[in-house]
Amino acid sequence: MARVLTPRAEDFPRWYQDLIAKAKLADNGPVRGTMVIRPAGYAIWERMQAEMDARIKAAGAENAYFPLFIPESYLKREAEHVEGFSPELAVVTHGGGKQLAEPVVVRPTSETVIGEFMAKWIDSYRDLPLLLNQWANVVRWELRPRIFLRTSEFLWQEGHTAHATRSDARAYARRILHEAYEDLMVSVLGIPVVVGLKTARERFAGATATYTCEGMMGDGKALQLGTSHELGQNFAKAFDISYSSAEGGREHAWTTSWGTSTRMLGGLIMCHGDDNGLRVPPKLAPVQAYVMVVKDGEGVGEAAAKLRDALRDAGVRVALDDRTDTPFGRRAVDAELRGYPVRVEVGPRDLAAGNAVVVRRTDGSKSPTPVADVVTAVLAALDADQRALHDQALAHRQSRTVEVSTLAEAIEAAATGWARVPWSAVGVQGEAEANGQGVTVRCLLRADGSVPDSEDEPDLVAILARAY
Amino acid sequence: MARVLTPRAEDFPRWYQDLIAKAKLADNGPVRGTMVIRPAGYAIWERMQAEMDARIKAAGAENAYFPLFIPESYLKREAEHVEGFSPELAVVTHGGGKQLAEPVVVRPTSETVIGEFMAKWIDSYRDLPLLLNQWANVVRWELRPRIFLRTSEFLWQEGHTAHATRSDARAYARRILHEAYEDLMVSVLGIPVVVGLKTARERFAGATATYTCEGMMGDGKALQLGTSHELGQNFAKAFDISYSSAEGGREHAWTTSWGTSTRMLGGLIMCHGDDNGLRVPPKLAPVQAYVMVVKDGEGVGEAAAKLRDALRDAGVRVALDDRTDTPFGRRAVDAELRGYPVRVEVGPRDLAAGNAVVVRRTDGSKSPTPVADVVTAVLAALDADQRALHDQALAHRQSRTVEVSTLAEAIEAAATGWARVPWSAVGVQGEAEANGQGVTVRCLLRADGSVPDSEDEPDLVAILARAY
Repeated sequence: MARVLTPRAEDFPRWYQDLIAKAKLADNGPVRGTMVIRPAGYAIWERMQAEMDARIKAAGAENAYFPLFIPESYLKREAEHVEGFSPELAVVTHGGGKQLAEPVVVRPTSETVIGEFMAKWIDSYRDLPLLLNQWANVVRWELRPRIFLRTSEFLWQEGHTAHATRSDARAYARRILHEAYEDLMVSVLGIPVVVGLKTARERFAGATATYTCEGMMGDGKALQLGTSHELGQNFAKAFDISYSSAEGGREHAWTTSWGTSTRMLGGLIMCHGDDNGLRVPPKLAPVQAYVMVVKDGEGVGEAAAKLRDALRDAGVRVALDDRTDTPFGRRAVDAELRGYPVRVEVGPRDLAAGNAVVVRRTDGSKSPTPVADVVTAVLAALDADQRALHDQALAHRQSRTVEVSTLAEAIEAAATGWARVPWSAVGVQGEAEANGQGVTVRCLLRADGSVPDSEDEPDLVAILARAY
Repeated sequence: MARVLTPRAEDFPRWYQDLIAKAKLADNGPVRGTMVIRPAGYAIWERMQAEMDARIKAAGAENAYFPLFIPESYLKREAEHVEGFSPELAVVTHGGGKQLAEPVVVRPTSETVIGEFMAKWIDSYRDLPLLLNQWANVVRWELRPRIFLRTSEFLWQEGHTAHATRSDARAYARRILHEAYEDLMVSVLGIPVVVGLKTARERFAGATATYTCEGMMGDGKALQLGTSHELGQNFAKAFDISYSSAEGGREHAWTTSWGTSTRMLGGLIMCHGDDNGLRVPPKLAPVQAYVMVVKDGEGVGEAAAKLRDALRDAGVRVALDDRTDTPFGRRAVDAELRGYPVRVEVGPRDLAAGNAVVVRRTDGSKSPTPVADVVTAVLAALDADQRALHDQALAHRQSRTVEVSTLAEAIEAAATGWARVPWSAVGVQGEAEANGQGVTVRCLLRADGSVPDSEDEPDLVAILARAY
């Protein structure tokens, strides 16, 4: 078979770009750093959205929508926030044919404008917690854009909540972290993320604590797939989000924010893709079973259509490919590229023996299967492959993660994967040194793998890696 | 009961603003003309989206996402398009801390950028039709903003398709018009829209034909709720969207576009709302049945919770209000405002007689109902009220529509409702005259009510009205 993609081992970034183009997932937009998400990519994103939205609603948050345009002055009210985002802002200076009195920024995130409205809507402790989420586009001007991973515009959900106490805020930021983000990434995306606390250096601009989900990609680098932040009272003070307590006093609220984005599409590709193309976990696959007429022959088209119908009736998302005027090899290569979990190949020779061939994308296995058993075989394959992709990714992560005890060893290990090293052997100084060599502290964990409250806890483990 | 809203008859626009504020549907955003859609409003929008999305997919279109930012030069390629949109553009001049070499506009609609990519993706007739849709925000600077109806930023879906022939393009523009838009508006929103052809004066900038769905609001004015456009080969020529035909030649494609937006929320309010607040058709209502504990008493809370559970098990979207520390009257007024289709009031006195009271928002009827029969009664009410709201709106439209034969009569009739008048009695001159008096031609119909191909057909009927 002719080589379709640059092999990963030869040039991983090139493989990634090739795959996105050839599987028709996305294109670069005309304005630098923007992207067009094509139907094949968007259909995967829609399923991620639906799964995430259900989890967010189960955690009690309600969807709303806040404006794209934010007065420049809002950004300036929280000092760390404006410092963090200023270099990335897109600014509208003209509207309706006139220069604007005050320039407006295109939202890079919505803490500020949502803070303004939380202040209006919250009066007493009875109004708390206030749990909001929005699905929106945001803009952060990117100097080194990479499709899905760092784009000047991306799609995301951003949650924003206000609570009466610090401990309520912390509990909710962590609830979303585990019940929405970690659960979605592990059980739907099939990415075995490590969940931990960011160091002060890596924190969100304006946060008092940032929690993260980190996944290992096929080349051993890390990708941050979602973050949840405690904002303390920073935004509550800047926007006067306050409430009258049951005891009668006036208190500032404690707020959180949390987000996941189209970056998850990049993570999915880089975690599960192989040299033949994409591999999509069955729960996310827009087409789970791809029924192909290998070539024309007696009863072949009819048998394929019947299998399509039977699979559909069994609840499988299925498509029929009977374009026999296109060479079968080309169509099969294309199906591999697009990562359909299962192919069902129906050809005259196999059919004469009463069989169709069930081909699994995950392991490439090809099983001649009696036509009457195809539905059962496909259902079993979809079920097994959702787990198999996760387990392969976990094995890969374990094989590329080493336990070390010094900063120098950790930096060396990060050339090919992740290093686990005592945080006490790194510290703020060591972190700066690692950064200088392109290695970052991805997160901090307790020895038992749980998420610490603070980087000052004793006996923490730091994960160091190169990252996207 | 104290007056909650300005009555419609006294000041309809004020009633509309009051209702939106008091039912917590939306707020004005900080940048002029923008809006915040609050959870109560957004939950209705989400159901509209889901219903529309299913219809668009059933018509074969696939979702994708194109960038928010469009190079200014793109807008200029189609002469009528740029002329139509220039006064409404928001322009980004700075990004990433620097002045941009070429300013970019925030999309007012996406014909241009999607045209650019259609040209890349379409090669042969086999690539046609190309059927795309996107859910997105767009920006059109508004000098006289009104929440949901005309806002500087709004949410919408915009479909964009390319076809091999003019007749294919026309058939698809009309398929969406009827199967997606008209069907959703009539059967889900309960708004009996009139579907017709726009005059040349009212056409979309760059279209060769614009079809529209027009609804009558509570004050007799018209609201355009959705439009579908044939774009001829205008954009295909401007962006070189061409294909090699089966015969081997190179041909320009024929394109369409079509959109519906958060404006539908405004239409829903103004069509069905009454002096007590919103009335939401059951199919769209986030809460269909609102179970209220009237006041505490033996077994009342338990009975209410059991009814909540029984309704939920029957597939009803239900909420329980047991906030007996808030006066019942205030809660009931609030439930009316929010337009929950059915209330189930559970109080000690009725419960002692084995009853709960089923209150229907549509007609205000209150029926003491044996507790065991409540689920059946609620299901029947939801079913009946979906139709009842539509039928009331239809009766209202019919009572406010008059058949006239001259332009003068039509303009006079438009003071209180719609006029149906022969298009031959209006014409281009008459249309300009009507416009001068604040009356517009909403659409043209054939005598049998069907949608004409051209305004030059004989015996067309024009609908004249004041409009939002």
